[in-house]
Amino acid sequence: MDLRPPFNITRSSHVRLTVSDLAESTDFYAQVLGLVVTEENKRVCYLRGLQEACHHSLVLEQAQDGGTCRRIGFRVFFDEDLDIAYRYFRDRGLPAEWVEVPHQGRTLHVSDPVGTPLELCATMETRPRMHIQFEIFKGAHAQRLDHYQILAPDTYALCEFYSTLGFRNSEYLAHGDTLLGAFMYRKGTCLDLAIVTGAGPRLHHFAYTVPESHNIFTACDVAGNLGYGDAVERGPGRHGPGGMLFAYLRDPDGHRVEVFNSHYQTIDAEIEPVRWDAASLSTNARWGLPALEKWYFEASPFIGVPQIEPAEPQRPMTLERFLLERSSL
Amino acid sequence: MDLRPPFNITRSSHVRLTVSDLAESTDFYAQVLGLVVTEENKRVCYLRGLQEACHHSLVLEQAQDGGTCRRIGFRVFFDEDLDIAYRYFRDRGLPAEWVEVPHQGRTLHVSDPVGTPLELCATMETRPRMHIQFEIFKGAHAQRLDHYQILAPDTYALCEFYSTLGFRNSEYLAHGDTLLGAFMYRKGTCLDLAIVTGAGPRLHHFAYTVPESHNIFTACDVAGNLGYGDAVERGPGRHGPGGMLFAYLRDPDGHRVEVFNSHYQTIDAEIEPVRWDAASLSTNARWGLPALEKWYFEASPFIGVPQIEPAEPQRPMTLERFLLERSSL
Amino acid sequence: MDLRPPFNITRSSHVRLTVSDLAESTDFYAQVLGLVVTEENKRVCYLRGLQEACHHSLVLEQAQDGGTCRRIGFRVFFDEDLDIAYRYFRDRGLPAEWVEVPHQGRTLHVSDPVGTPLELCATMETRPRMHIQFEIFKGAHAQRLDHYQILAPDTYALCEFYSTLGFRNSEYLAHGDTLLGAFMYRKGTCLDLAIVTGAGPRLHHFAYTVPESHNIFTACDVAGNLGYGDAVERGPGRHGPGGMLFAYLRDPDGHRVEVFNSHYQTIDAEIEPVRWDAASLSTNARWGLPALEKWYFEASPFIGVPQIEPAEPQRPMTLERFLLERSSL
Amino acid sequence: MDLRPPFNITRSSHVRLTVSDLAESTDFYAQVLGLVVTEENKRVCYLRGLQEACHHSLVLEQAQDGGTCRRIGFRVFFDEDLDIAYRYFRDRGLPAEWVEVPHQGRTLHVSDPVGTPLELCATMETRPRMHIQFEIFKGAHAQRLDHYQILAPDTYALCEFYSTLGFRNSEYLAHGDTLLGAFMYRKGTCLDLAIVTGAGPRLHHFAYTVPESHNIFTACDVAGNLGYGDAVERGPGRHGPGGMLFAYLRDPDGHRVEVFNSHYQTIDAEIEPVRWDAASLSTNARWGLPALEKWYFEASPFIGVPQIEPAEPQRPMTLERFLLERSSL
Repeated sequence: MDLRPPFNITRSSHVRLTVSDLAESTDFYAQVLGLVVTEENKRVCYLRGLQEACHHSLVLEQAQDGGTCRRIGFRVFFDEDLDIAYRYFRDRGLPAEWVEVPHQGRTLHVSDPVGTPLELCATMETRPRMHIQFEIFKGAHAQRLDHYQILAPDTYALCEFYSTLGFRNSEYLAHGDTLLGAFMYRKGTCLDLAIVTGAGPRLHHFAYTVPESHNIFTACDVAGNLGYGDAVERGPGRHGPGGMLFAYLRDPDGHRVEVFNSHYQTIDAEIEPVRWDAASLSTNARWGLPALEKWYFEASPFIGVPQIEPAEPQRPMTLERFLLERSSL
Repeated sequence: MDLRPPFNITRSSHVRLTVSDLAESTDFYAQVLGLVVTEENKRVCYLRGLQEACHHSLVLEQAQDGGTCRRIGFRVFFDEDLDIAYRYFRDRGLPAEWVEVPHQGRTLHVSDPVGTPLELCATMETRPRMHIQFEIFKGAHAQRLDHYQILAPDTYALCEFYSTLGFRNSEYLAHGDTLLGAFMYRKGTCLDLAIVTGAGPRLHHFAYTVPESHNIFTACDVAGNLGYGDAVERGPGRHGPGGMLFAYLRDPDGHRVEVFNSHYQTIDAEIEPVRWDAASLSTNARWGLPALEKWYFEASPFIGVPQIEPAEPQRPMTLERFLLERSSL
Repeated sequence: MDLRPPFNITRSSHVRLTVSDLAESTDFYAQVLGLVVTEENKRVCYLRGLQEACHHSLVLEQAQDGGTCRRIGFRVFFDEDLDIAYRYFRDRGLPAEWVEVPHQGRTLHVSDPVGTPLELCATMETRPRMHIQFEIFKGAHAQRLDHYQILAPDTYALCEFYSTLGFRNSEYLAHGDTLLGAFMYRKGTCLDLAIVTGAGPRLHHFAYTVPESHNIFTACDVAGNLGYGDAVERGPGRHGPGGMLFAYLRDPDGHRVEVFNSHYQTIDAEIEPVRWDAASLSTNARWGLPALEKWYFEASPFIGVPQIEPAEPQRPMTLERFLLERSSL
Repeated sequence: MDLRPPFNITRSSHVRLTVSDLAESTDFYAQVLGLVVTEENKRVCYLRGLQEACHHSLVLEQAQDGGTCRRIGFRVFFDEDLDIAYRYFRDRGLPAEWVEVPHQGRTLHVSDPVGTPLELCATMETRPRMHIQFEIFKGAHAQRLDHYQILAPDTYALCEFYSTLGFRNSEYLAHGDTLLGAFMYRKGTCLDLAIVTGAGPRLHHFAYTVPESHNIFTACDVAGNLGYGDAVERGPGRHGPGGMLFAYLRDPDGHRVEVFNSHYQTIDAEIEPVRWDAASLSTNARWGLPALEKWYFEASPFIGVPQIEPAEPQRPMTLERFLLERSSL
């Protein structure tokens, strides 16, 4: 863990997804999660959470092949951090390229060692926060993008990489000496980026905060009423690592989005990460059925990025396996 | 449906369960549900919900063979209703017997045609309601006993019997002409007694109201923390019939208790019951995985009451079957 | 108290108000409370709560002089109850008249001894309940009309009258032998009609239930955002009698509406009403500043009904008096 | 605003108060707010919020003269930051002194230009977070100390000082060119330190977050039940600046503590502070009565620190003045 990272990534910022039907996907995120449409045209829709002052945290792009992720975005604090980042990635032989991106300041495209395509910027256009415009609230009242979870073939190795960028572990899941999942943060809560072992890199999910526990139910209820009942893939439940309430939904293209209520504050350097011991990845707290197999194994590919299988195939305690082993089946 | 029933049952009132370890079961209901102990001794514990003014709505009796139900109780409005009820059951060749029961006024034991042992009384000792004693609240803040669900071999026949006693349907579940489940009420909400087809009579569950949706999570969370994580059998979820949020827990002897938030007001005579159409019993709303097989088939037997199988074996869409049919397994 | 009343009033049902600007008032109740518009035309708008199956619980009528109440409505159980009620009022020299009212079955207009104009009916047109149509929810998610509070010159005398109609006291406020306020119910919760001493008869407020405590805040928040901030007259706070959370709002014509979360179950005959002792009317629980003077003294007049002053002028502990006596002023 | 401050203050950390009756004050904070007692003896009690991993965020010290504040604490990120801070304050002729403080790492006492006594440290002993130990939750489930509000004779001047330390404004209240209140933060939410014009320096209040809006009511309800009903000085209500729900309570010595639900995320450098325009300080959102005069003018003095009056006496719109001007009085 590097407490004096070479450049200052401050938080997870925005995710770019391709979708097969822009209107339908926009509707899903606006009605079910309650995101606000900042701006849209025939090709792309920019959305943000109710409390977000920046132009977008979710970018939906119309594509023939929906269901892929273009990039996950992080913010850096100063514009100069971008220059340092550029050199940092170049020096290590990693992709780094300046690009022009609408509604964002100077923008840098880089990839981590496993190929996850990242987008870094220091500024974005701003818009008024809508967090007290109660009369326009919809769905789950999603407040802000909080974190991503990616699948990667070697959690430990990737965790090490992000540690050198200043990411710290709030909690992690391990079996003996094997790290199965790492909850890493930059912004003073317990997550910006979760890394979990699996064929990857792929985007397992991105997560929006909701203010209160009843909002978790509303996400499911509105999804159900709008015909997305099957989209409620997991939950509502309580996470073990983190301790938050959650529900996972699949959007019309199968992208997985989590709504959860807010986690705890981290910040201080002396606090040790919390270890969760398990033979296989599980993020349930002390109650609740295991997640479906597809929750563990399905994820959004990054466009053009080859996937690598983990050295050892994962065998999580899925709901299917759980029922078989209990001879329920 | 008889809107002028022979005697006036007003509401579901109390349930008597046998338990193997009185101290542990008391602890479960006091810590997890948040019931108040009105009175207890080595043999029996009387509990009530936070808003209940009557002495008990849950009676736990120490027994070698825990896990059985002695009786489910209903209140009648006048003492005279008991006398009419006595004659009513006797005239139909059904069991009816006067008994002495502590903390209750004159008490009548009767059985319905399928053998469900009922206990009727018109009065009980009272205690102050605790609904604004916030400083003693625990667990899920359970407010009051609301309803029972019983399994019976012929839902239609039993539904007819209770209809003559003035019970009305708020909602029901049917497949073609076959009634699979009936939500019946006396007290002006949508349930006092749910009847569902299955080997019976058995007590499928009894249910307590909780004030808000977050209390449903707290029931699960406290259960998990106290070592009863496996007791969270189903949920949190949303009912189709009724529309309430729910979680089902199994107590240390396997008795099933539901916590749910409050349903709607019925009362008026002109409102038609709501029909839910399904090939098999399901109480999910428009999202959520099916319930485990054991949720459908396990229930508390009534002591000494023989069970009858339904004419046609039930084949509900269990979680296990659902996963098999989706070839997930 | 008569537990065998001559006819069966089952619940408070609907209130008819005159308003100066039908469109604005409709908007207030739809946006702030979240009522559903069942039907409207240029002259009248019918609204109902999200869980209500009957055609209307609030009827707004365009009038030059908004701010008056036409009638408060109660439901009776059987159509025959109306005939008995007709004779009952006629026999006592009280007004009773058959009228035709759209969307209701046979309807009877009567007045209580102090002149409060009541409207009784046994049936209404029905509509689907909207309680699980989460995607159309607005404002405070108001569920159903629950009760009225009227001001009357002699609480004891009027309380006696309603007692003979089967209304029972759940809680009451008294100073020595003087009854200052009576919380009366028919429907098995703790209120259908509150009677409080004051120049009357006038409609002090009518009240809708909301599901959870956060909805109380939302009523205030949306009111504030839509320009009705001054309409939040009192609260959010906690009632002493009843123990519910509340907020009182004044609609564009000054009609007072309460939103509150649900109270406890009554029903049983043996439970004694709860006495609250106070030198003057106060409905605060154990914290919170007193209500403004106008909360005590302003109310909607009933059209054409003369008002009578109480024998002794009321001198409640208003916020103004409280601050003066504490020498804060 | 200095985005590259000389040393890195990361967050508000802990407050030290004197109290007249340690047992009673401890009980107040444990029962009403729900703080956890980390450690206590006859002279001092250390408390922390449910999600806090550090040893204390509230230190109560038994004293003959309760009702004073010793110091407000901030955390710095690195131990070296303390050394830089030491020189920074010394160089400016401001008090700076190394002290030994139990349960904290190296600790520095400094004072800002107006005399506010600060305590800086980089580390503290840690304890397990209790945020998922639901079975021990009490009162308002207070999660963590969030911010202080201090009164100072010249808000602009003091705001400038803290700006050089890297504090940024999220929102502020001004009348023309006069800054009346500044909401300043370090930690990525909208507050660590609020500065408001008034005789000072004094501690107006310190604030703990609560997870959901219902917890705000519970703070009031439990306070009321435990005999602290008069301690609920203001609220529940909604802040204008910030947009959070709040209630303000006075502890047994008159120290003011706020409970509020969580605010929004700041972090990004390009976001402009939000201006609220008002002739006098008001923190209400768009509804709710003004605060009592004492809410504006009473505050905890810092031991041994002389108070300075502002150049112009403040004349906020108090509840008393509001009622007088409306001729309500």
